[in-house]
Amino acid sequence: MRVLGIDPGLRRLGWGIIEAEGSRLRHVANGVCESGTGELAVRLLSIHRQLTEVLRQYAPDVAAVEQTFVNKDAAGTLKLGQARGIALLVPAQFGLEVGEYAPNSVKKTVVGVGHADKRQVDHMVKMQLPGVQIVGPDAADALAIAICHSRHLGGRELRIRA
Amino acid sequence: MRVLGIDPGLRRLGWGIIEAEGSRLRHVANGVCESGTGELAVRLLSIHRQLTEVLRQYAPDVAAVEQTFVNKDAAGTLKLGQARGIALLVPAQFGLEVGEYAPNSVKKTVVGVGHADKRQVDHMVKMQLPGVQIVGPDAADALAIAICHSRHLGGRELRIRA
Repeated sequence: MRVLGIDPGLRRLGWGIIEAEGSRLRHVANGVCESGTGELAVRLLSIHRQLTEVLRQYAPDVAAVEQTFVNKDAAGTLKLGQARGIALLVPAQFGLEVGEYAPNSVKKTVVGVGHADKRQVDHMVKMQLPGVQIVGPDAADALAIAICHSRHLGGRELRIRA
Repeated sequence: MRVLGIDPGLRRLGWGIIEAEGSRLRHVANGVCESGTGELAVRLLSIHRQLTEVLRQYAPDVAAVEQTFVNKDAAGTLKLGQARGIALLVPAQFGLEVGEYAPNSVKKTVVGVGHADKRQVDHMVKMQLPGVQIVGPDAADALAIAICHSRHLGGRELRIRA
């Protein structure tokens, strides 16, 4: 099963794709969609195009997006929301179900504790995806979301089979 | 010039289209895209499809979206942001420039004062678009945004010609 994780952001939207076979995970690809500094609609269009290309190229089976809503201020939350709208839309356009996870839930699944810092998450992502080269912190978060989703789906499958 | 106005919202997204010839305005169509109550990604996909159909059917030349970010809470602002992301994306996918106006700026242009209430806006929209049948309050706001955008563009054109 190929899993896409997305860490949404207007300036930089991280994405990561892993292959999960039972509990075995393998890194496929990761990257960041940058939207530059132009008009808002044009930036969202750019994110949409880049993310659509990722889905076309890597054809994931499922997707998950980080569920953040607490930001510094309302303007920041709105910006994040706009990028998040695109992050949810694109997988849905490919017919994928889109999971959502709160940051603490991602950390708890990947690191074991909900209050882990970025370095710990980064470390555990590298442990679980041997040989991975991570493009940057947003891509690391996206891979963590993909790992989290694969663990949850694995658990769900086991429960259904039991 | 055909102008599309959008009042973004996750549950109900209002749209309105007018034809502007100089200072003369004519109503073309208005409506509301409703997204139901399902999964977030599916709701955003539904809004995207409905709004894409509006653009296909009415082929506006320009578009404008209301610029709201103050909401009750962060969760509400994020929801609005997600819908707003789609509202900005769709016209950009059709190659249109997308204007943005704060609610007070819309009211000031359409009614003459920035603190006008909904009934005043509704009244002035009906005055400026004789014979219009408005689907609901979100569509009325969307028509007000379209009127506001046409007035601003008209002004810009006059300034360029002068």
